[in-house]
Order: sequence, then C-alpha cells, then structure tokens
Amino acid sequence: MNPNDFKEGFQAREEVLGKENVENFIANTNDFNRSFHELAMKYCWGDIWNRPGLDRKTRSLVNIALLTALNYQHELKIHLDGAIRNGCTKIEIEEVLLQCAVYCGVPAAGNSIATAMEYFNSKETND
Amino acid sequence: MNPNDFKEGFQAREEVLGKENVENFIANTNDFNRSFHELAMKYCWGDIWNRPGLDRKTRSLVNIALLTALNYQHELKIHLDGAIRNGCTKIEIEEVLLQCAVYCGVPAAGNSIATAMEYFNSKETND
Amino acid sequence: MNPNDFKEGFQAREEVLGKENVENFIANTNDFNRSFHELAMKYCWGDIWNRPGLDRKTRSLVNIALLTALNYQHELKIHLDGAIRNGCTKIEIEEVLLQCAVYCGVPAAGNSIATAMEYFNSKETND
Amino acid sequence: MNPNDFKEGFQAREEVLGKENVENFIANTNDFNRSFHELAMKYCWGDIWNRPGLDRKTRSLVNIALLTALNYQHELKIHLDGAIRNGCTKIEIEEVLLQCAVYCGVPAAGNSIATAMEYFNSKETND
Amino acid sequence: MNPNDFKEGFQAREEVLGKENVENFIANTNDFNRSFHELAMKYCWGDIWNRPGLDRKTRSLVNIALLTALNYQHELKIHLDGAIRNGCTKIEIEEVLLQCAVYCGVPAAGNSIATAMEYFNSKETND
Amino acid sequence: MNPNDFKEGFQAREEVLGKENVENFIANTNDFNRSFHELAMKYCWGDIWNRPGLDRKTRSLVNIALLTALNYQHELKIHLDGAIRNGCTKIEIEEVLLQCAVYCGVPAAGNSIATAMEYFNSKETND
Repeated sequence: MNPNDFKEGFQAREEVLGKENVENFIANTNDFNRSFHELAMKYCWGDIWNRPGLDRKTRSLVNIALLTALNYQHELKIHLDGAIRNGCTKIEIEEVLLQCAVYCGVPAAGNSIATAMEYFNSKETND
Repeated sequence: MNPNDFKEGFQAREEVLGKENVENFIANTNDFNRSFHELAMKYCWGDIWNRPGLDRKTRSLVNIALLTALNYQHELKIHLDGAIRNGCTKIEIEEVLLQCAVYCGVPAAGNSIATAMEYFNSKETND
Repeated sequence: MNPNDFKEGFQAREEVLGKENVENFIANTNDFNRSFHELAMKYCWGDIWNRPGLDRKTRSLVNIALLTALNYQHELKIHLDGAIRNGCTKIEIEEVLLQCAVYCGVPAAGNSIATAMEYFNSKETND
Repeated sequence: MNPNDFKEGFQAREEVLGKENVENFIANTNDFNRSFHELAMKYCWGDIWNRPGLDRKTRSLVNIALLTALNYQHELKIHLDGAIRNGCTKIEIEEVLLQCAVYCGVPAAGNSIATAMEYFNSKETND
Repeated sequence: MNPNDFKEGFQAREEVLGKENVENFIANTNDFNRSFHELAMKYCWGDIWNRPGLDRKTRSLVNIALLTALNYQHELKIHLDGAIRNGCTKIEIEEVLLQCAVYCGVPAAGNSIATAMEYFNSKETND
Repeated sequence: MNPNDFKEGFQAREEVLGKENVENFIANTNDFNRSFHELAMKYCWGDIWNRPGLDRKTRSLVNIALLTALNYQHELKIHLDGAIRNGCTKIEIEEVLLQCAVYCGVPAAGNSIATAMEYFNSKETND
C-alpha cells in the first residue's frame, strides 16, 4: 500500500490516530486486506475526517457514541486515543457515555466505560 | 403527571423539544405509560440533558448519531427539531449523517437522510 | 399448507395467538412463503411454545423483551395479544418495558410503549 | 449532481436498480443530500458493485441477507428489484430468507418475507 | 461513592448480585465512572429492580433474554449469577436461551449458551 | 446426543465444518446444552444446509455476511472454515467483507477482516 496514493487520508489518520497507528497500519497491509485498507483510507480518512463542515473534536465524540451503540470495543479504544488527540476532555467523553446509557441502555454504556477505564489506565502508565 | 414533580426535566425538555411537544407529552400520559414517562422525564431530561459537562448542541449531534445507529426514525424526527433548537446547522446534521454512512453503513444513513429531508420539508412548509 | 402436518404447532399457535390469527396464517400461505411458514410452525410453535420447562406467561414476557430489544414492532403487536391470552397483566407488560428502558435504552422502550398503547386502545374499542 | 462525474457508479446503479430508480435519484438530489448521494454513488456503486471478484447475482443475495439482519425494509425492497434484475430467482431469494430465519431469528426473516411478498405482488400487478 | 446516598439501590443490588459484587463495585468507583455508577445505582437498582409490579425471578429471565439479544456477554455472566440468586433454575435459563435461538437467531443463543456453560462450570468448581 | 437421531444434520455439518468440529460438538454436549444442540442440529444443519434451492458455497458467503452484520466473530471463524470447505475463494470472502463495509459500516467489516486474517494465518501455519 503506497501512502502517496492516499495522501490526504494518511495525513488525517496520522493527525487523529497518531504516527504509530499509521506505521502499524502500513506494516499490517497484505494481499487479503489491501482493498479494505484502501477503502477505509479513502472514504473514512481521505473523505469524512477531512470534511470541513464539522470539527474533528465533535466527530470524535460522535464516533465514541456510534461505536458504543454498535458495541465495537476494539475500534472504540483506538478512537478514544483519537478523541484525546482531537482535544476532547475526559469529562466530555464521560458525558457522551452517560448519554449512551440513556439512549442505548446501561450495558452498552457499561462496556464502553470499562474500555475507557482500560484506555486511560494504560495511557497513564505509559505517560 | 404533575409537572411540578419533574420541574428540571420539564424545563430541559421544553427548551430542547419545544412547548408543543411538552404539552402533547402531558396530554398523552395515562395509567399505562405514566411510569415510563416519569422515568424518561427524570433520567433523560432531568438528569442527562441538564448535565453541564457537555453543551446541548453537541448532545443533539450525538443523539442524531445514536438514533441513526439504532434506526429509531420516529425519535430521530423529534430530535432533529431539538437539534435545530439547540443551534445545530443543517450542515452539521448532514455531516453527522455522512459520518454514520461510513461507521454504520450506507442504508442506516440513508434512512436518516430521508427522515431529515421529511423534517426539513415539513418545517419549511410550516414556517 | 396442511394443518394436520403441524398439529402441535397449530394448537399452540391457536392457544397463544387466537383462532383468527391462525386462519389468516393459513389463508396467507402461498408458494413463496410456504417453507418459511412451515419452519416457523415447526420451530417456533411446535417446538418452543410447547416445551414444558417454562410457562407460557413467562415466555410471553420474554418475547415482549426480545421484540423490544430488536425493534420488531409488527411482531410485538401480535405477541402483546398473545401475552394477554397467556395471562399477563397490563402491569406486567409495562414493567417489562420499563426494564427494557434501562437495559436497551429509552427510545427502544418508547417505541414499544407506543405500540402497546395502540394495541390496548384498539382492543378496548373492539371489546 | 452531474452524472458525468460518477459515470461508473451511474452505470452500475442503472444496470442493477433500473433506469427509473436512477432518474428518481437524480431528481431527488438537493443541497442537503448531495454529499450523501455522491458518497453512495462513489462508494457503493462506483466501487463495490463494479468490483470483479464477486458476481452481481451473489452480491444481491448477500445484500438481501444484510438488509434482513439490519432490518432495513425500505432498502430491501429496492434491492429485491435489483436481485431480480441480476438474475436471482424467487427460490434463491426465499432460501436466503430461510437462512436468515435460523441465523437472525424468525421475526427478522418474517419482516423480509412480508416485504418480498409485497414486492412480488406489486410487480405481478404491474407486469 | 457513598452507599448511604443510594440505600435502596445498594440493597437491591446486594440481594440480586451478592455482597462481593457490591464490594467490588464500590472499590472500583473512581472519578471517571462515578456518575455512571450513580446513574446505574439509581435507575437500574434503586428503581427498576425494586419495583413491585414484576417479581425478580421473572426480571432475571427477561434480563437474560435482553442481554442475549444485544450480545452483552460480560453483563450476562453477572446476571446469570443474579438469576440463580433470584430462584431461577438451570432449566428455566436454558428455556429462555432456546427461545432466544428462535427469536434472535442460533448464533445469538449459542454465544449465551457458551457463557452459561462457563458460568455453571466455574460455579460448580467453586462450590 | 445420539448422531443416529440427526443423521442428515450430522452429515451436512461434517461436510461443511469438518469431522473434528462434529467430534468436538458431540463430546461437548451435556445436560444443559443438549436441547440447544439438538435444535441447531435439526433446523440449521438437518434443514437449512440440506435444502436444494441454494448451493452451499453461496450459503457460506451469505453466512459470512450475516455473522459480520451481527458481529458474531467466534461463529464467523467456524464458518470461514466452512466457506473454504464449500469452495469459496479467499477473494470471494474478501469481496463479501468489502460489501459489508458499505452496508454495515467500516468497523463491522474491520472486525471480520481481523478474524479472517487470524483464521487464514492459523490455517497456513497448520497446513
């Protein structure tokens, strides 16, 4: 996968998810997942995350809500990191998850609260 | 259902969903749905929508995302009205739905785009 | 579709959903949906609703919860009728939906509360 | 929305969903839904439905399964028409829905069976 | 988190999920999850699980169904323990999961059957 | 559990999921899961996977789509093995998952892409 073919996507992804995430992404691209990686790079990162109509901080909060509603905890962990990089505070993340408790149910929010605790703990250990 | 027992909830609901919505809500409360209405009033409106940690405009965008992910179109229509009242622009709503297209799939976003078109059309007719 | 081939299923279905529901079911069976109708008759009615390990009243409450979680409102309406026939009270149905509000989210429960209101209203008009 | 900008997408869409669907799609594009329509046209039609690795007939059956699992009945109706155009038989569609009954539950399949009945009935009336 | 502020909730939770669960819950409460824990304590435990209109044994069976439909296996494990404490038999739990197989699909039920096997095995080892 | 009682189901399961899977299935049947195993054997394997109206290769692709939409990754791994045994190519599996990206969202497809990578890697190590 050639980063030059997806320049705008790679730049947005690096800004949101960090350099290490992008390096792993390139290293893990292979024959089987290449088309999926390219699709994600083009539509998700090159397109959505670069659109000017909504700031990235709000997009991160929206994403935390969506990933909670759909219960994609692995992806959520990655986007919690993106949320912090995009300037979301711990309190704003907590508030989105409280809102999810009411709109998606307590177990949905509870799963994401647990993932967020794990993320914040590992981050504080590493910092 | 006595509005005096849920003052904070009623105030938040009226500010977000409007006076007519609250009047209908009270008029439609009966023996069967009273406990549910009280729970929604306390939990949703008295609690979540009054919390200071996240502004109501962002909560509206988060709600549009959640209701799209879970495909609750009736509730979405009500919250599109709340979003406009909370200061969201048509462009911000569109951007959230585009983000949903990538994270929840094109049909999920398509349903909500159709609901939003209906809402905006009926609003323009009424204004 | 020959009721004699699915005797146990037809009996359970008639006991739970009523004679009219079964007559419509037979009348609406055609080349396209026959295998689906047979599968539902065998699997759902002949098997699950005839199992002795759980009383039908509890099965009805469980079904109301499942159909709320999955947001199948058309099917829910049919099973609200079954629940009443199986001896569930309006209060027990309300309690299951309140429990859904906390475990599946307020909009999920709200949809089913609205369906239940419609069902109870049409029933009282017909009675 | 200029069809010349999305030639491959428009061609695939017309081949699968028919000329009338494409004409309605263009006529219904407006300021609010333009970006969503463009994304769907590029991503869905220009990209996925034109990929050579899987024949369109199988893609149609996969889509019927996905739309049943997610309960998007409006979109399903459109794709039932696409499935017929892509060479799927009524029996193959029925078989996919029977498989959904076992893997997604009987109410999920029941909803789609009802939508398919409606679609086939309206089609036979029009033919 | 002060148990005196949520007395009714703590009592219900201890009766259903046991003393150890409550002690862990208090020990694991921190700045990030406090509001979520308080919300769960108030609405879930103080309110729903204390309501008189439905016995706790039936609530447990309803919860097993809901958590299966939504595939929250971690929460399910906790509520299997609550179900036993509320007087549900292994057979009643099995019956609810069989009903889920038909209404939510075989893989949904299969996941919960596996979680229940794990729970019953670990319980028998500990007893 | 007596394989002679479910001959057609056992044969289909062995043909699709392999001898080892069937041996484990029998060895893991116990008092708690027997009825569920019998139900799965009768409806899933004895019935659906033996129906003549749709070839097993297409059924496998449909199943990969359904399990992705519903996010049942454990079951998906088992059915990836079945898909290979039913003659699906790696490219066809990849194409179904790309289609899921558009119809169920990028995180849904991403989870299944990761599961497929794991499956293909472990398979190549074992071969």
